[in-house]
Amino acid sequence: MLSHAQLATAMQRAILLAHRGPAEDPNPQVGCVILDAGGIIVAEGFHNGAGTDHAEIVALTELDPTLDPAELTAVVTLEPCNHTGKTPPCAQALLAAGIGTIVYGQPDIGVESSGGATTLFAHGRQVIGGIESVATAQLIAPWHARTGQTRGHTIAKWAQSLDGRLAAADGTSQWITSATARRHVHIQRALADVIITTTATVATDDPTLTARDAAGGLLVPAPDQPLPVVFGAGPISDHAKIHGHPAVVHRGLDRAPQFTGTDLAADFAQLKDLVGCSPRVFLETGPRFLTAALAGGLVDKLLIYTAPTVLGGPYHAIGDIGISTLEERLNFSFYGVHRLDTDLVTTLRKDH
Amino acid sequence: MLSHAQLATAMQRAILLAHRGPAEDPNPQVGCVILDAGGIIVAEGFHNGAGTDHAEIVALTELDPTLDPAELTAVVTLEPCNHTGKTPPCAQALLAAGIGTIVYGQPDIGVESSGGATTLFAHGRQVIGGIESVATAQLIAPWHARTGQTRGHTIAKWAQSLDGRLAAADGTSQWITSATARRHVHIQRALADVIITTTATVATDDPTLTARDAAGGLLVPAPDQPLPVVFGAGPISDHAKIHGHPAVVHRGLDRAPQFTGTDLAADFAQLKDLVGCSPRVFLETGPRFLTAALAGGLVDKLLIYTAPTVLGGPYHAIGDIGISTLEERLNFSFYGVHRLDTDLVTTLRKDH
Repeated sequence: MLSHAQLATAMQRAILLAHRGPAEDPNPQVGCVILDAGGIIVAEGFHNGAGTDHAEIVALTELDPTLDPAELTAVVTLEPCNHTGKTPPCAQALLAAGIGTIVYGQPDIGVESSGGATTLFAHGRQVIGGIESVATAQLIAPWHARTGQTRGHTIAKWAQSLDGRLAAADGTSQWITSATARRHVHIQRALADVIITTTATVATDDPTLTARDAAGGLLVPAPDQPLPVVFGAGPISDHAKIHGHPAVVHRGLDRAPQFTGTDLAADFAQLKDLVGCSPRVFLETGPRFLTAALAGGLVDKLLIYTAPTVLGGPYHAIGDIGISTLEERLNFSFYGVHRLDTDLVTTLRKDH
Repeated sequence: MLSHAQLATAMQRAILLAHRGPAEDPNPQVGCVILDAGGIIVAEGFHNGAGTDHAEIVALTELDPTLDPAELTAVVTLEPCNHTGKTPPCAQALLAAGIGTIVYGQPDIGVESSGGATTLFAHGRQVIGGIESVATAQLIAPWHARTGQTRGHTIAKWAQSLDGRLAAADGTSQWITSATARRHVHIQRALADVIITTTATVATDDPTLTARDAAGGLLVPAPDQPLPVVFGAGPISDHAKIHGHPAVVHRGLDRAPQFTGTDLAADFAQLKDLVGCSPRVFLETGPRFLTAALAGGLVDKLLIYTAPTVLGGPYHAIGDIGISTLEERLNFSFYGVHRLDTDLVTTLRKDH
């Protein structure tokens, strides 16, 4: 496995390459480098504008066919696309080429094109998202602005049984989903700017809320870790692990930020000031907060891990969101459906 | 659209063709005919044993390429396979060939190979399953016996929101899922031998429980319609539509059969005698019966239609199934995941 420093250096090179592509184009500027097991660049590519090959394809074409692809790491500024547009999907090309590890900076937030990283992960590839998150965000910002895409959005994540339960009647809930699904969660965390938890969860679970790899190490370096923010008026122990979160330490803070107010929407609006950009917010809370955020209309996307089990009983992932009749239901659209080992992961975005 | 008589005649021809294949083989005997818009056979094929082309592929190869494939109907004794075994999937071949309508006799109950009909349906093809259900069942029975597959199984079907609700707080539940998903249900009904409802549902909804096509006509002829059976001790109105169900009339019965006992397992065991075979049972009941059947361990497969909406509130698709701790959960495995218009349809089978 290459070090964070090697991945960051490669990503900086990929960003430089990206700038060689046209700045004003229907497509974003994207760069890609491919590293061997020692971190040496063995291929490079950038996207030269709509209708031409994507950066990953250019780099793959350049590869020495005698190299073992499983040993190689593709470092791309943007998540490989998952759809057939003017060219075939890059995720499929990387799969077909047998590249072992895929590292990217920014998630693809297009409805049609997103999901490439999950496709690669579902096929057993090593995947790391969110490396050099600030610099790659700057790279893609002009394209987001040109196409009217909004960077910031709030993703509510939960795991549930087929029948929408998150625990059995006695409260046992550990490992409803598979280890593979839980590893996937860490990739998603790393893509966020802010990760929200509650005083109740901190008191009960004392979570670290870091994006970690399978070995328990940091998946992305401290500057790319999501900043944990605690909601709730209750006290937080001085010894809570969250105060030692690398993103908290990296910012020179003594403690994780806490919002104690009761106006959820107002507090969400302030998250921007904490991280200096319209943030990607990842909700990893208990069902009470999740239900309140949904009821308040504050959730843009859903990330649902479904385990193939039926639990029944009183512990629902989502409680009463204040809907009395069918016309008031919260409508979303599926834009990603993947099998992850024994589980199913679906992503949805809010209808407007 | 061809008539039921034309489809039945074509299926009888496909069965004859199937018998030309080897009787003792790792693969089943399968036959296929392709009809033009007037019901004339324009191609035929049968499977000549493991490692050779499947019946559909043989027939497709024989097709006159000047015919408009959208006007053609492929009639196959067994659901086209959905997986890449020794040969590529037939569902993909039929899709690629552009065949407009696919008619089959028996569902493919293999974990890996099943789902071909849903793949075709999800791509907008006209799909009818269950034509000549008795004769095609006889054709495939020796293969089921050789491979240890069990014909009979109980499928629990329900539609729910993302959070496992089937209605809003005021009880409104009509059209949670799309019209496409509801058409898919009718194909599944037609594959069943028995369709179970309850006295409560009959009293409230007075359902017909026929497998119908988009125009409201019978999707399959009376002998291939599932026999409705009512569970519950309550009275059933003499005027209930279910008594006029074509499968009831076809059997010369005055009324739909009713089981009034309280031992669900014992009653399920008697269904065999009603239809003369180990039956495919389709549960289309309210949540109370569904919950009892799950709690009783009587459900082998799940067919879940999930609408991309969040409802919250008190109306859960599945209630308390008597599980107190996580170790007691009912485990299933996903074997089919399809997008149907705006919805998701998943199929699962019980783990043993």
